[in-house]
Amino acid sequence: MNVLIIHAHHEPQSFCSAMAETAASTLGQQGHHITISDLYAMSWNPVASATDFQSRDNPDYLTYALEQRKGWASQTLAPDIMAEVEKLLAADLLILNFPLYWFSVPAILKGWFDRVLLSGVTYGGKRLYDHGPLKGKKALLTCTLGGRDDMFAHDGIHGEIETLLKPILQGTLGYVGMDVLTPFFGFHVPYLSDDARGEILTAYVKRLSGISQETPLKMPSLNDYDDTLRKT
Amino acid sequence: MNVLIIHAHHEPQSFCSAMAETAASTLGQQGHHITISDLYAMSWNPVASATDFQSRDNPDYLTYALEQRKGWASQTLAPDIMAEVEKLLAADLLILNFPLYWFSVPAILKGWFDRVLLSGVTYGGKRLYDHGPLKGKKALLTCTLGGRDDMFAHDGIHGEIETLLKPILQGTLGYVGMDVLTPFFGFHVPYLSDDARGEILTAYVKRLSGISQETPLKMPSLNDYDDTLRKT
Repeated sequence: MNVLIIHAHHEPQSFCSAMAETAASTLGQQGHHITISDLYAMSWNPVASATDFQSRDNPDYLTYALEQRKGWASQTLAPDIMAEVEKLLAADLLILNFPLYWFSVPAILKGWFDRVLLSGVTYGGKRLYDHGPLKGKKALLTCTLGGRDDMFAHDGIHGEIETLLKPILQGTLGYVGMDVLTPFFGFHVPYLSDDARGEILTAYVKRLSGISQETPLKMPSLNDYDDTLRKT
Repeated sequence: MNVLIIHAHHEPQSFCSAMAETAASTLGQQGHHITISDLYAMSWNPVASATDFQSRDNPDYLTYALEQRKGWASQTLAPDIMAEVEKLLAADLLILNFPLYWFSVPAILKGWFDRVLLSGVTYGGKRLYDHGPLKGKKALLTCTLGGRDDMFAHDGIHGEIETLLKPILQGTLGYVGMDVLTPFFGFHVPYLSDDARGEILTAYVKRLSGISQETPLKMPSLNDYDDTLRKT
């Protein structure tokens, strides 16, 4: 497999960074080809803006999704976007590795979604979910948290983590058609002993060893919905 | 009331920008004091990083939340963060106005959460939800979408929009203790006639006229949870 790891932590010595390195070394040893986009190291620009288009279809009014489609067709998107899109299209497995900020991804990673998941290329019209253009690719979300796992149980104060991550798991990765695997979490990380952190990495290595055989999460299927996308 | 509008759209002529202007003019005419942070116009930097701290408690290892607490105490946070924190602390009503990108806020606004909602100042330990430090302030999310409202019905393909927005409504605004009002949506905006857009603005003006009397959404209460934050 071609594996693309998008890593979004500001501290190279962090446990989160160790998770990215663990994924790269473990999957590399299995013979997979590894590409890493270390967003902080790259000084990735997360802001979707007019400067993303070297030539504009409409210079007087910016409709971002429309300019994405035109810019891809004419290959005039900003070079940093083009490079990431090429990596994404070549990937068989996408790993998003980040610390949870406000029950979501850090802004630097949110801007990777906003700028790289191009309209027309990764979704468009009824090309979404099981009809999404990135069908056949797998996606794994790996994330570190300050909170304890029981805060995210069904009776925990924040509610289930899968619900909080629905905009990413379903609304982003599932939306573009990817097979979304069960996320891997490192809970309570800032408060753990080195041994406990080591156990998480060991569990992650084990998980990665069988990653290509996993059954993905269930996503909406267009077959279950009518022309207006209401359930039939 | 002091009203703080955080606006996050790249196109000043957009309908989303018209919503921000409508909020400012309508609430201004009611006698409220209006402050607008137009994140694109400000070239707001959304990336939480080491440069946010003019002096570091630990220069060798960046623990972002810890440096936020120290930086606030010593008033050595980056000036752009300090300015936004002051605006937030002075606000009685916070309006977040943005186009929905990937079922969430654009990265430029996500980074406002990441950098401005300081650890120790807006949350910390068990100071969250109804014990949150920003208790007494109201928050309103106003957002424009390409999708139709029926795609977000209980039987719509994406599921309920309130669930998709839970990380923001509960996990961010509710978490810091704010009274979170029912969001205001402009659905299907790119495909609407001028008349239909005008109707949304009219409905928004009407909504704003009674904004100070609204009942907020229900959020978790620490009273319903034990010391480990599991339901009692």
